[in-house]
This record gives sequence, C-alpha cells and structure tokens, in this order.
Amino acid sequence: MTTTQRRDEVTETATANLGPIDHALVSFVESSSGAARGAGSAAQRAARYHLESGGKRARAELALQAGSALGIPDADNLALAATVELLHNSSLVFDDLQDRDTERRGTPAVWVRFGADVALCTGALLLSAAYGALSTLADQARVGPLVAHTHRRTALLIHGQTADLAVANHTSTTLREYEQVAAEKSGVLFALPIELALLYAGWDTAVEQARRAAHALAVGYQIADDLEDLESDLAAAGGKGRLNYVSLANERSGSGGIDLARERALELLHESIALAKDLPLGAGVPLQDLAKRFAARL
Amino acid sequence: MTTTQRRDEVTETATANLGPIDHALVSFVESSSGAARGAGSAAQRAARYHLESGGKRARAELALQAGSALGIPDADNLALAATVELLHNSSLVFDDLQDRDTERRGTPAVWVRFGADVALCTGALLLSAAYGALSTLADQARVGPLVAHTHRRTALLIHGQTADLAVANHTSTTLREYEQVAAEKSGVLFALPIELALLYAGWDTAVEQARRAAHALAVGYQIADDLEDLESDLAAAGGKGRLNYVSLANERSGSGGIDLARERALELLHESIALAKDLPLGAGVPLQDLAKRFAARL
Repeated sequence: MTTTQRRDEVTETATANLGPIDHALVSFVESSSGAARGAGSAAQRAARYHLESGGKRARAELALQAGSALGIPDADNLALAATVELLHNSSLVFDDLQDRDTERRGTPAVWVRFGADVALCTGALLLSAAYGALSTLADQARVGPLVAHTHRRTALLIHGQTADLAVANHTSTTLREYEQVAAEKSGVLFALPIELALLYAGWDTAVEQARRAAHALAVGYQIADDLEDLESDLAAAGGKGRLNYVSLANERSGSGGIDLARERALELLHESIALAKDLPLGAGVPLQDLAKRFAARL
Repeated sequence: MTTTQRRDEVTETATANLGPIDHALVSFVESSSGAARGAGSAAQRAARYHLESGGKRARAELALQAGSALGIPDADNLALAATVELLHNSSLVFDDLQDRDTERRGTPAVWVRFGADVALCTGALLLSAAYGALSTLADQARVGPLVAHTHRRTALLIHGQTADLAVANHTSTTLREYEQVAAEKSGVLFALPIELALLYAGWDTAVEQARRAAHALAVGYQIADDLEDLESDLAAAGGKGRLNYVSLANERSGSGGIDLARERALELLHESIALAKDLPLGAGVPLQDLAKRFAARL
C-alpha cells in the first residue's frame, strides 16, 4: 500500500466519524449527575450551545486519522478525539472571556450569551469532561498514562495562555518569545491528538518527535496567519495594533518583515513535514497534509 | 478495638500526614512541562500563592482518615487526598473571582493579587492537577473508575455553582431549592474524599450512602452557619441582604425562622451521623466526628 492510498483511506475514515464526534462531545458534557436530575446546569446548556455553534473539529480529525493509522479501535479512538476537542473548546470559552471577544463562529460567544460567570463554569466543565472522556477507554490500562500526559500538556497550554496575556501588554517581545508562546498556545493542541494516539498504541518513544512536528506546524501556521492578517492586526485595538510577527520583525530590522516572516513560516512548515514523515505507521500523515496545505498558501 | 480507639489512631495518622499533603499539592501543580522549563507560569505561581495562604485541609483530612480506615497504601491515599483538595481549591479560586471576594484566608484573593485573567488560568490549572494527581496512583487499574467518578461529581459541583449564581439573584427561592444548592456546592466536596476511598478499596456499593451522609452534613453545616451569620447576612450587599436559610424560613412563615433552622440543622446532622455510622470499616467516622462537632455548636 502506498502512502497516498493509506492517506485516502484514513481521510475517509475520519470524515465518516465526524458525525459521531459531535455526538460524543455533547454526550461527555451531559452524561453527568447534573444532567440526569433534570434540565442540566446552565454550564451544560452553554457547553452544548458552544459545541453546536460549529467548528472544524480539526484536532479531532487529526486524532481520528492518527489513531486509525495506528490501529486503535474505533470507540477508543473516538474517546481520544473527544478529549482533545473538549480541551480545545474549553480553551476557546476561556479565551473569549479573557479577551472579551464577542463572537465565535459567527454567533455570540458564551460569555456574551450566558454571562461571564456561566462562561467560567462552562470552561471548567469542558476541561473536566476531557478527562471524563479518557476514563471511558475500553483499554483501562491506558487511562493512567494518558491522563498524566494530558495534565502535563494542559499545564503547558495554560503556561502559554498566561505568557500570551503578558506578551500582549509588552512591547519588547523578541521573535523567539513570540514563537515560544505560539508553540504553547496552539502547538500543544495540534500535538496532543498525535501524542495521545502514539501513547495509546505503545509508541512512547515517538511522542517527542510528534510534539516537535506539531509545534513547528503551529508556529509556521501562526506566522502565515500573521501575514494574512497584517492589515487588520495593525488597525486593531483602536490603532494600538495587535501583536504580529511581521510588525515585530520590522521593529527589529526596520523593514523586510514580510520576507522574513514568509521565509520563517516556510522553514517551520518544511521542518514539520520532515519530522512528521518519520512517525510510525503513517501517524504523521495528517500533520504533513496540514503543513503542505498551509505552505501552499504562502 | 473500640470505635473510639480506632478513631484516635486514625486522627493521629491524618495529622502526621498533613505536612506531606501540603507538599503534594504544590508538587502536583508544579510537576509539569511548564515548570520544568524555568520559572513556571504565572498560573503556577498564583496556585502556589493560593495553596500556601493556608486552609484547614479539612477535605484532605477526611480522605486520609477514610483511606487509612480502609487500608489504602499511604502514597495512593495521599494522591486521593490531593485530588479532593486541588478540586476544592480550584473552586475557591473560581468562586472568589465570580463573587469578587477580595480576601481569602486573610490575604488578597488570587484575582486581586494576580488579576482576573491569571486567576481564571489558576482555577483551570488546579482542576487539571486534580486529575493529574489521580493518574499517579500505584494501583493503575483504579485510575479509570476514579477519574470517571471525579468528573461526574465535578459536573454536579459546577451544576451547584451555576444554580447558586441563579438563586442569589432570585427572591422566591424555596427552602428545598436552597438545600439542594448547598448539597451540590459544598456536599460534593465533603462526599468525594469518602467516595474515592470507598471506590479505591472496592466498596462501590457503599458510595451512595457516603454521598447521602456527606450531603446531609454539608446542608446541616450550611444552616448552622446561617444561624451564626444571620446578622451579617441581613446587612450584606448594601442592605439587600445575602441569602440565608433563616431569612427564607421567616419569609415563608412570618417568624420562627431561627427555631425552624436549628431544628432542621440538627435533623440533618443526626441523619448524617446515622448514615455515616454504617459505612464499612469505620470509613464514616471522620464524617460522624464533623457532624457531632457541628451539632454541639447548635
């Protein structure tokens, strides 16, 4: 079987599962004592509202594809995908609240629709449900190591979030610091789908390489995004501007930020492709596909 | 061995462990990738600040005593106690932020000292660390069921928190609704120490009785507290008053709220003692002790 054939099969499997993933996300949030007793909590209603507002489920798709490649049974694969997606959505609800972003996926953000207090409870509920999803694995011997890993990565995600808050109020951010924050804030949630699948399937020694591939992907994507959003970022926050790789690069060298950003983004995306290529059993194919898609836009 | 002898031994064990529990709490928060890379995140520093500000560790003590009675090995017993205490402290950090309470244990609340954004991240980190603690159990076969149970109970705690927010803005709360919210908001965290110990030790069939004993204890305690705080609650919130069982009872029957509250609190505390007495191997003794102590104050 060629890599291309496998990739196509893998993509089909993942797409076929995208109905089940939405169902799984809602059920992990609602299958708790609170819901059993009646209408469920305001946080459960808000979590459902948030989950049903859409989202590409890109991280769930990464998990499903990697898990299929590694031969993880469907039900457990779905639980791993749900864990990552619940964690991601928890961070979105918290982010919108912190940044006072009023819209998410074209509808009012949870804190706008339900108030800040309920939004806070909703973020916490989604975070707890991510661990609840892990607890349902048929292979119970994997729960301990996967919970341990998920906590370590969640702590790093939170590290990135507080660093981001600090950096946003800081004018002397270096390019390296900027990349570090991007790796933690978005790299963790691109890495976790592959990491959990590898750990589940016993490929512990490949986890570090998956992390590096996913972090390079996330930072490359962030810089590509900054290139596309340059004008709106410059105009953001009432003319004060939003932190952007190109502006930071220009501040350092006077000009040439656009070229520098494009080169760096391509370098990182190619690094990601090279690292992902060597992951076992084609588990890195979905990362490679994403990196190629991002690179093609540059 | 008489019940009294066992109780004294159990109390000694618990007290001897109270140094280790503080150490364990901080290490579960800091033993993550974020901290390994340097100074740790602002959320880690804030979590440490919060944990070091004191607290009676009453829930950890309940867990340690119940676990000792049930013969749980020390290291795992400590992890269970840490889980409950981390969850409790997560809820305190979130609560203070939501209620804009400026002080906790005589020092500035986390959101006052570190800002609302960092406080939100701190609550999330402590919640995640509660699951991280469970993942360290030497008996790895117990991790799955205990994570599942902790998520269900966390969902109920969050249910109670959102109901509390709703009830606080509602004038027609019934006494039953008030008790329900108290059971969820504080009962869950009195029950969880005993529930986790019972589940770990294989006494699954006793979990429901432990829950009922702990919820009765928590509601009885809340009403006893309301009796003590009646004057300050009436004067709170700029004369609008803070929700209090006695005031609610007076609103319904015109007067006699104090007698009604005292009777109900005693009824619940005696119910708690009766339920806790029958738990296996004296696992309910610490609940009985608390209930007796609260009843003696009435």
